[in-house]
Amino acid sequence: MKVLVINCGSSSLKYQVLDMTNEILLAKGLVERIGMDGSVITHEKIGMDKIKTEVPMKDHKDAIKQVLDAVQNEEYGVVKSMDEIGAVGHRVVHAGEKFAESVLIDDAVIAALEECVELAPLHNPPNLLGIAACKDLMPFTPMVAVFDTAFHQTMPPEAYLYALPYEYYEKYGIRKYGFHGTSHKYVAQRAGAMLNVNINDLKLITCHLGNGASVSAIKHGRCIDTSMGFTPLEGLVMGTRCGDIDPAIVTYIRRKENLPQGVANEILNKKSGVLGISGVSSDFRDLEDAVAEGNERAALALRIFAKKVRFYIGAYIAEMNGVDAIVFTAGVGENDVNMRELICTDIGNLGIKLDLIKNKVRGKETIVSTEDSKVKLLLIPTNEELMIARDTYNIAKKVK
Amino acid sequence: MKVLVINCGSSSLKYQVLDMTNEILLAKGLVERIGMDGSVITHEKIGMDKIKTEVPMKDHKDAIKQVLDAVQNEEYGVVKSMDEIGAVGHRVVHAGEKFAESVLIDDAVIAALEECVELAPLHNPPNLLGIAACKDLMPFTPMVAVFDTAFHQTMPPEAYLYALPYEYYEKYGIRKYGFHGTSHKYVAQRAGAMLNVNINDLKLITCHLGNGASVSAIKHGRCIDTSMGFTPLEGLVMGTRCGDIDPAIVTYIRRKENLPQGVANEILNKKSGVLGISGVSSDFRDLEDAVAEGNERAALALRIFAKKVRFYIGAYIAEMNGVDAIVFTAGVGENDVNMRELICTDIGNLGIKLDLIKNKVRGKETIVSTEDSKVKLLLIPTNEELMIARDTYNIAKKVK
Repeated sequence: MKVLVINCGSSSLKYQVLDMTNEILLAKGLVERIGMDGSVITHEKIGMDKIKTEVPMKDHKDAIKQVLDAVQNEEYGVVKSMDEIGAVGHRVVHAGEKFAESVLIDDAVIAALEECVELAPLHNPPNLLGIAACKDLMPFTPMVAVFDTAFHQTMPPEAYLYALPYEYYEKYGIRKYGFHGTSHKYVAQRAGAMLNVNINDLKLITCHLGNGASVSAIKHGRCIDTSMGFTPLEGLVMGTRCGDIDPAIVTYIRRKENLPQGVANEILNKKSGVLGISGVSSDFRDLEDAVAEGNERAALALRIFAKKVRFYIGAYIAEMNGVDAIVFTAGVGENDVNMRELICTDIGNLGIKLDLIKNKVRGKETIVSTEDSKVKLLLIPTNEELMIARDTYNIAKKVK
Repeated sequence: MKVLVINCGSSSLKYQVLDMTNEILLAKGLVERIGMDGSVITHEKIGMDKIKTEVPMKDHKDAIKQVLDAVQNEEYGVVKSMDEIGAVGHRVVHAGEKFAESVLIDDAVIAALEECVELAPLHNPPNLLGIAACKDLMPFTPMVAVFDTAFHQTMPPEAYLYALPYEYYEKYGIRKYGFHGTSHKYVAQRAGAMLNVNINDLKLITCHLGNGASVSAIKHGRCIDTSMGFTPLEGLVMGTRCGDIDPAIVTYIRRKENLPQGVANEILNKKSGVLGISGVSSDFRDLEDAVAEGNERAALALRIFAKKVRFYIGAYIAEMNGVDAIVFTAGVGENDVNMRELICTDIGNLGIKLDLIKNKVRGKETIVSTEDSKVKLLLIPTNEELMIARDTYNIAKKVK
């Protein structure tokens, strides 16, 4: 079965087509500027050059149409007709407490996800638009929703409840949900395979370090805690997000800067993180360039980022009463040799020893700890699309 | 030299008189309802019964007058005249970045503390009122200010800077300050003495667990991190404070509940913590009673409190690359046998083993870990007043 994977943002859309009989990626692409001037689709049949086409797309349905045209194109497509696509998998950011695993999309599911819009006002609406557009264009193809929050639904109340008036949880669903779940789950499974140990016998800490970043504590295959919270703002320092701060600061900043409604949140999400500290960039490569030129605040931003990752690693070791392996994944985690080194500095007494030579590697599944490191350090490139395709395939083949 | 220690709140005041030649407590007392109907002073000469006197006190100067009368009283006083009081030590909550240690109070110091009022609008003004009243009544007695924030001023920028736009630090002093510093410093020194190891050779985690609660990482005698932040709201779950939450929640609650300016902060400070989770009480004894009656949410509140302490212990072990001893102090830390047990559950793989028999003790300086516990667990009753008196004595004797 061939599966189309759709990841819909507000004005952009990523897609992949995978052949699930052997889990091979056939094509992938990106649509940008949906509903804006200059909308464009970049399509890549694996093994061929990328093809970039400017074409007006006034909404997500137009965008999906372009995607379907591209994957059926005689020259650079990968299917003869859409009948070959056995199922579509949709990434959905927020399922609240409604879904702890991926699910076949029907009207009830869509209604449930619409109820979650308030929890993820920026993310769920475009996800729903993508689903609606696909249903219009492929009404008889099974669709599966795969949620960023699902993997974290195994957290116990001790981990997900905030110390707030309890009725805020009951009335508004204010609790820790966690995100990047598909990625944490994928690398946890790969870690088990790499170490040749059943994941149910492992204590893992998975560090998804990209522009958004989160850490999860995965004990015996189940997520028991994660650093992102009610929203993706909590936890680690990120590219532009502040992560953990004294909650009293939110009100203080608003008052001192006389900020209108909503702007404080915008600043904490878009102007903070390593960008805020450094004043240079949210991109770690830019920061490392700035450090090379002697920029002190860029260096400080990187040290603060690393310190916070180490902080959570220690906290989760305590929560799980030990750890067998720590996984680094996502943009920074997979590719930033210096950052992995910075994170693993001065932590040897916890049994965590990075091999500085083995660590000089990018984007490759490999062990980067020393032979005598009690805790294994793993580099695992994430693959959320493959996870989505797998869940989609497994659910769709039952209804076919 | 005899030293008077003053700890001024907005409508209450605690005091002690100590003889610093041998560090003996001579008298202590409490003034309540300053500036309100029914103001009252409770005085205790050590070894005698408490004496409670209702007397009108319209302001802090009236209150200090009553204190001075009490300590000079023929029957239950401890000095013949105020000339015997060699110095007065004042607890001051917030010194911003201005003072990293205790200081002799002069006009410049008072001006500096007035600049810190904005950082601690509830605490610094009554502290300053107490200083002014004492200066009026004892113009020739040296006065020393001892700060809750001072001990934490050794934190490096990696620990005290938030991942916010850097100019908020420059313009408004938004950074982590930390509180309970006098208590953390006191128990760290006592830990060194109990273990008979120079504090400069120790890695300590000190847990000040009272109605307010904080944890500090103290490496070689210097605080390198602490859980309270810009205000005392951050960090651990507390009696009525939320501690760490997703900062996006502040805005979310305000919008959903349509809260007027300032009320969200009030809720996070006064209606949250174990009170908010349990709906029962902020007092751990009440919660344990409720648990005994089968109250599930009270039990959950206690487990969440314990989990967060364990979380910080793990984080600080990572930050210091190990720990030699963990100290429990303050109301809950000193007296709550069950809570210490809950905190130290399932953490043995980190070398932390509580002796369940030795742990059955309250308010006594003692080691509560097992013989084979790699990390020593210490119970140390705090004594902030003694610390204030010591600093006051050491500074005042130089100017006498």
